[in-house]
Amino acid sequence: MGYIEEFFEFLSIPSISALPEHKPDIAKAAQWLKNRMVRAGIEDVQIIETKGHPVVFGKKSAQTQDSARVPTVLIYGHYDTQPADPFDEWHSPPFEPEIRNGKVFARGAADDKGGIYPAIVAAEEAIKEESLPVNLKFLFEGEEEIGSPALKGLLREHKARFECDLVLSVDGGMFSGQIPSITTGSRGLAAIEIEVAGPQTDVHSGGQGGVIQNPVHALAEILTGLKDSEGRILVEGFYDDVVEVSDEELKKFAQAPFDEEAHRARLGVPALFGEPGYSLIERMWVRPTLDANGIWGGFQGEGIKTIIPSKAGCKITCRLVPDQDPETICHVLEDHIKRHVPKGVGVNVTVFPGNSKPYVIPENHPALPVITDVLHELFGHEPVNVRLGGTLPIAPAFLDILGTYLFFFAMSGPDSNAHGPNEFIRTEDMDRLRRGLRMFWSKYAGSYAKLGGPKGI
Amino acid sequence: MGYIEEFFEFLSIPSISALPEHKPDIAKAAQWLKNRMVRAGIEDVQIIETKGHPVVFGKKSAQTQDSARVPTVLIYGHYDTQPADPFDEWHSPPFEPEIRNGKVFARGAADDKGGIYPAIVAAEEAIKEESLPVNLKFLFEGEEEIGSPALKGLLREHKARFECDLVLSVDGGMFSGQIPSITTGSRGLAAIEIEVAGPQTDVHSGGQGGVIQNPVHALAEILTGLKDSEGRILVEGFYDDVVEVSDEELKKFAQAPFDEEAHRARLGVPALFGEPGYSLIERMWVRPTLDANGIWGGFQGEGIKTIIPSKAGCKITCRLVPDQDPETICHVLEDHIKRHVPKGVGVNVTVFPGNSKPYVIPENHPALPVITDVLHELFGHEPVNVRLGGTLPIAPAFLDILGTYLFFFAMSGPDSNAHGPNEFIRTEDMDRLRRGLRMFWSKYAGSYAKLGGPKGI
Repeated sequence: MGYIEEFFEFLSIPSISALPEHKPDIAKAAQWLKNRMVRAGIEDVQIIETKGHPVVFGKKSAQTQDSARVPTVLIYGHYDTQPADPFDEWHSPPFEPEIRNGKVFARGAADDKGGIYPAIVAAEEAIKEESLPVNLKFLFEGEEEIGSPALKGLLREHKARFECDLVLSVDGGMFSGQIPSITTGSRGLAAIEIEVAGPQTDVHSGGQGGVIQNPVHALAEILTGLKDSEGRILVEGFYDDVVEVSDEELKKFAQAPFDEEAHRARLGVPALFGEPGYSLIERMWVRPTLDANGIWGGFQGEGIKTIIPSKAGCKITCRLVPDQDPETICHVLEDHIKRHVPKGVGVNVTVFPGNSKPYVIPENHPALPVITDVLHELFGHEPVNVRLGGTLPIAPAFLDILGTYLFFFAMSGPDSNAHGPNEFIRTEDMDRLRRGLRMFWSKYAGSYAKLGGPKGI
Repeated sequence: MGYIEEFFEFLSIPSISALPEHKPDIAKAAQWLKNRMVRAGIEDVQIIETKGHPVVFGKKSAQTQDSARVPTVLIYGHYDTQPADPFDEWHSPPFEPEIRNGKVFARGAADDKGGIYPAIVAAEEAIKEESLPVNLKFLFEGEEEIGSPALKGLLREHKARFECDLVLSVDGGMFSGQIPSITTGSRGLAAIEIEVAGPQTDVHSGGQGGVIQNPVHALAEILTGLKDSEGRILVEGFYDDVVEVSDEELKKFAQAPFDEEAHRARLGVPALFGEPGYSLIERMWVRPTLDANGIWGGFQGEGIKTIIPSKAGCKITCRLVPDQDPETICHVLEDHIKRHVPKGVGVNVTVFPGNSKPYVIPENHPALPVITDVLHELFGHEPVNVRLGGTLPIAPAFLDILGTYLFFFAMSGPDSNAHGPNEFIRTEDMDRLRRGLRMFWSKYAGSYAKLGGPKGI
């Protein structure tokens, strides 16, 4: 079976992790992966069960003489996909892959089957040539799209098995379609829910209007007390641990191609908006945020219902930057809200579990010049440094548990429609990933041998 | 059939106006009423069809010599009821009336079958005694519980038929169980909906956090700009037309028995709350309000969804006092909001139709001393003046269209569970209404003859 045919077979399995009815497909995809890895010459291939969907593991030792001075690279990716709805917006069915103009369209094409399949093929090629320059480990999970609930526990339980010098994530993507990018960090996450309690039931706004505080107005007062009309967060202590980014790094960020006006137009907002005194790039990547994700209270139907609602609530998440700690931030938020309870209501704050630390790769990490070198060669253009505004719980998890930094090494473009209809990956980008991985392994092994030293490089 | 047996028969008809499956019961109740009115000696009894549920009309001329100097009193009430759920909280089935300790329990017992039935009986008694001292008209509608959608149109269309000197509403109730009260006004209503539009779809709070304004925060900013944390309304022009109430009237209000602490405890709020500088009674009755009735935006489910919502919205109603005009108020609200649009979002304001004017009976209205006199005699206690914090669209409708003031003349207590499970009316209060109406007709006819003059008295 050819390279693309085989990829199509993998893409045809609707391994949607969020939908229970697709559990057999998840199992099928894990089995498919296992078989394919075994055929590639990867060893010790195992399907490791978790409370949810299984992880597929495998490894292969370097095929060199001096294996003591050879680094171990763990390839991370996931074989589960997002759900595919809305189905009627797909030009071809999401689980019947189709190639059009050099693009493979299917759910999971970019995120992340088009990452892990080329990685296996790259390993297979090296193994067949008997020239694998690094020790490889593979960790392909089946729950990335539902927040990797089992991953931390698995890393802790099987710490020795996953030990490595570097994690390469083949999940992710390039910041721009033209210029290669290296993602050097991501923001953390802290989440709370605020509930404002007024009268014990909804009451008549005629009878009680003027008599009691309205929980919706009280909640609005709390919200405007958390962030001002310019976008500055007003919570005492919120910015205390924020590390200002060096001018050097800011200069690097400025090289990332970003068209603010096009971005504004795409979002459909009258103007971009955010914390005064910082550029858009800073606000996106290295400044923390506080955003209500949802708000509710009282009557939401058609027409009028003249009540004062009994309760109102909202969910708040903050994106955090180094060195903000999610637990500390939840604490200062809760404290602030408790110190500013509006008159005439009760307020309850719930801290959500599943907070995540911000993540940043040290500027002097020795793998950075290697990746820079590889990307330059692959794209014919110096890569730019970028950060991710979002949160990658797995990166700080690998760092906390294994002490190992995770680097993104994924080639799909920002236009890949990941999570949306008509997701695709360019076959060209798959080729780049395959070639890039082999280049990286070689160069990294060379660099590692030169610098010496085990883990931590 | 006895007085109570007959009342039970009327109460057994589940004439719920809100539920389409009860349309035949509405028709049955209207027919029951018509038959009963005919039997009472009321003339020209008609079921007048509307787009919704019919109105039952009837009239009877005064049985006196000098009918030119006799006033015409229109008795207003309604034969429709609220739905009866939650059924399992009723101690006896809502449409199987039961008498316990002098209270008749049934849906509609107080609101308003226990108002209109004694009114018909009172008329019947006077007619049989050939001593009816006023011209009577009856307007019993079947849509009060759904907002009287057809009433205004009907009054306009059949203006001559409904013309009168005074409307007596047998719908309503006493402010207190101990001391009789006269409701001298009610607040008006103005309603708008605010929609804040941010990005054209919900967006990722990681990718766009720090980049765009969050519609929920923008809406909170709008809300805190409408009313301050003390309860003062900040909208320019909002208070312009508010008439300050005379010290004399305030003194009268202060006589109404009202236990603030018991009220607070019943509502379950930590403290009562409202516009500084005004007493609770003033805030309830003669100061305008602005309240969000509902708010929504973004994710309202369990757990976390890290989005910046595309939209957020809320519904606002204001209770208005003399001489605020609902249309003007909607206008100043809209103007204020449009002048204070938060950065980075669009804002849309929708004005709801169905606004209603505030209503107040002039302190020197000549029927007031008559009602005062009657209530004093009935209860053995001087009545207190009260206002209604809520809105009575029918009162300003009668005034606007017929030029006639509406007075409440209803005896059920504030504990009658109207709209709730175990609604009841005391047989004693039904008797009081029957006797009270006859006393009022006599005294009013006397007063009218003395003062002379037609309509307007």
